[in-house]
Amino acid sequence: MTLKLPPIADVNDAPLAQRLQHRIDRKTKPLGALGRLEPLALQIGLIQQTDTPRWVTPQLVVFAGDHGLAARGVSAYPSDVTWQMVENFLAGGAAVSVLARQHGLALTVVDAGVRHEFAPRQGLMDCKTAPGTADAFDGPAMSEAQCQQAIAAGRQVVNDLPGNALLLGEMGIGNTSSAALLLAKLTGADLALCVGRGTGLDDAGMANKLTVLSGVMQRHQAVSEPLQVLAAVGGFEIAALVGAVLQAASQRRVIVVDGFITGAAVLVAARLAPAVLGYCVWSHCSAESGHGLMIRHLGAQPLLDLGLRLGEGSGAALAWPLLDSAVRVLNDMASFESAGVSDRDAT
Amino acid sequence: MTLKLPPIADVNDAPLAQRLQHRIDRKTKPLGALGRLEPLALQIGLIQQTDTPRWVTPQLVVFAGDHGLAARGVSAYPSDVTWQMVENFLAGGAAVSVLARQHGLALTVVDAGVRHEFAPRQGLMDCKTAPGTADAFDGPAMSEAQCQQAIAAGRQVVNDLPGNALLLGEMGIGNTSSAALLLAKLTGADLALCVGRGTGLDDAGMANKLTVLSGVMQRHQAVSEPLQVLAAVGGFEIAALVGAVLQAASQRRVIVVDGFITGAAVLVAARLAPAVLGYCVWSHCSAESGHGLMIRHLGAQPLLDLGLRLGEGSGAALAWPLLDSAVRVLNDMASFESAGVSDRDAT
Repeated sequence: MTLKLPPIADVNDAPLAQRLQHRIDRKTKPLGALGRLEPLALQIGLIQQTDTPRWVTPQLVVFAGDHGLAARGVSAYPSDVTWQMVENFLAGGAAVSVLARQHGLALTVVDAGVRHEFAPRQGLMDCKTAPGTADAFDGPAMSEAQCQQAIAAGRQVVNDLPGNALLLGEMGIGNTSSAALLLAKLTGADLALCVGRGTGLDDAGMANKLTVLSGVMQRHQAVSEPLQVLAAVGGFEIAALVGAVLQAASQRRVIVVDGFITGAAVLVAARLAPAVLGYCVWSHCSAESGHGLMIRHLGAQPLLDLGLRLGEGSGAALAWPLLDSAVRVLNDMASFESAGVSDRDAT
Repeated sequence: MTLKLPPIADVNDAPLAQRLQHRIDRKTKPLGALGRLEPLALQIGLIQQTDTPRWVTPQLVVFAGDHGLAARGVSAYPSDVTWQMVENFLAGGAAVSVLARQHGLALTVVDAGVRHEFAPRQGLMDCKTAPGTADAFDGPAMSEAQCQQAIAAGRQVVNDLPGNALLLGEMGIGNTSSAALLLAKLTGADLALCVGRGTGLDDAGMANKLTVLSGVMQRHQAVSEPLQVLAAVGGFEIAALVGAVLQAASQRRVIVVDGFITGAAVLVAARLAPAVLGYCVWSHCSAESGHGLMIRHLGAQPLLDLGLRLGEGSGAALAWPLLDSAVRVLNDMASFESAGVSDRDAT
C-alpha cells in the first residue's frame, strides 16, 4: 500500500537553534535552571521558525472510533461508551471538556468511525469511514481503501482547522488493544510487554485480552509494512490520527501527543515520515504499561508523569500550560543586560 | 527557644474523605484514570473542608534574604543578585513574574532580610529583620530574637494577604547552603548528600561549598532543637517562610511548596507542627541534589519532575494549573449518571 505523503521538513536549523539557545541563556536565571522548559522553548521556536514563537488558536481534536475487537471482551467497558462519551465531550462534561475550557483550547470531536449515528452539531465533525472496524481476530480491521480514506479524513480535519498547535485526543472502546498491537508489530517488542489493563481490566480480563491479542498477532503475522499493519490491527480513529499528525507536521504545527493511543498513531506516522517526530511534544507518560516502552523506543521525553490513563487528550491538555510557559519565558523574561542583574562569577 | 504556635488542625476527616472519593469515582472516567489529580482533588477538598472546593485569590509570595555565608564563595553568583532579582521580580521580568502573570497569581515580594534598601512600592512588603544574616561559619546566622522576629513577620505577611492558597517562593544568594544545612541537621543525613550545585557551581566551587558547610556543621554540632538549628544555619527568608507555612496551615490555606529552600522551611515547620504537612502540595522535584532526599524523608509526592533548579516559586507557579485542574475536575465533570454513560462491565 502506498500513500501520497505531504512534504514534511526537518525541524533542525542550526543557526536558528543557536540564536534561540543564546536568548534562553541570557535570561535572568542560572544556565539551564528552567530544566525541561528550555529545550521545549527551543523546539517550539524551531517548529515555528522564529526566535519569538507565538500561539495561534491551539486546537484540541478528539478522534473517535469503534473496534470490532471490542466484542471479544478486551475492554472493561461496552462499545456504547464510545458514542456516549462523544456526547459527553460535546455536552462539556468529560475530563477533556473541562480541561479544554480551563486552558482556552478549541475542542473538536471527530467521528472517524463510531458505531452510532450522531445528530449534527457544533464541535462535531463527521468523517466516518464506517461504523466501527471489523474484528481483527478474523481478518484486517479495515480494507486498504478504508485505511487510506481514514488517513485522508484526518489530514482534511487538520487542514480545515486554524492554528499552529494541535493537541491530539482519542476515544474508542478497545483502542488500547489496537495500540498494543501496533506497538508490538512495528517495534518487534514482546506482545505481553505492550498489553496493559486499559480502562481497568481485572486479572481475568487481562488474561483474556492477552489471549485474544496473541490470536490477532498470529492472524496477521505476515504483515509488516506500516500501512498494512495499521489496516490490519488499527482503528479508524488511529488512522485518522496518523493523517492528522502528517498534516500538522507538514504545516509546521506543534503536535502535542497525549497517551498510548495517540502515541501509537505517531509511531505509525514516524515510520512513514520520520521528520514528524521533530514536531511532537510528548505530554505525559501514562500508567498504561506499554506506554513507557513506546516512549523509550521513540526516545521521547514526556513532560508529565502523573499516572494518567484516561486518553481523550486529557494529558495533552494538562501539559499545555507548560508549552505556554516555555513560550512566555522566551518572550517575556528579562535578560541579565535588560534587568541590570549581575551574571555569575561577577565580583 | 519556644515559639507560640498557631492552632493547626489535622486535615483528615474520614466522612468527608469518603464523600469526596465517591464523587471522584462517579465521574465519567475509569476508576483512578486521572492518576495524581484524584488524590490531589481529595486533599484540596479536605483542606477546604468541602466537597466543592473553590479557589479564592491565590497568592504567590517570594521571601528574599541575604546570607553572611555567601561571602565564603558558596554560590556562583554575588550577593547583590538578591536585591537585583527583587527588582526584577517587581519589574515583571523574572521567571516567576512571567509565570504568575500567566496563571493570574497575585505576586508579593517580601524583603525578609536583604542587604539593600529598597524604595517602597506596590507588591513589595518590608519585613526586614536585618540586612542579611551573620556568617554561620563563625556563629549563629541569627539571634534567637531575630529568628522569632522573622517567623512572626512571615506569619503576619500571610495573615495580611487574602485568599485560600499560598504558593511559596524565595530568593537569596547562598540559600541552598542554608537549606542543605537544615536538611542535614534535622534529618541526620550525610551532609555530602544534602549539598548540591545550587545556581551552578563548578567542581572546584562545589568542593569549596562542601568544605565550608562541613565547617558550619562542626561549629553548630551541639545544636539540635529545630528553632535553634534554624537560628544557627537558616536565613531570614527561610525563617519567614516557616512562619508563613505555620500561619497558612492554621488558616486552612493550601500551601504549594516550590523547591529545595521552601521545602527546607516546611521541614522546619513540620518539626514544630507535623500537621502542616497535610496542607502542603509539593509542586516539583528539583535538580538540586538534596531535594530528592528531602522529599523521600517527608514522604512527599511532587507533581512535576522537570529538572528545575531556579527557585523564586517558579516550580510552584508551573504546577498551579494542575491544582486548578483537580478542582475543576471535581466540580465540573459529569458523573456516569448525569451524562448517561454506561459504567464498566455493563452489557
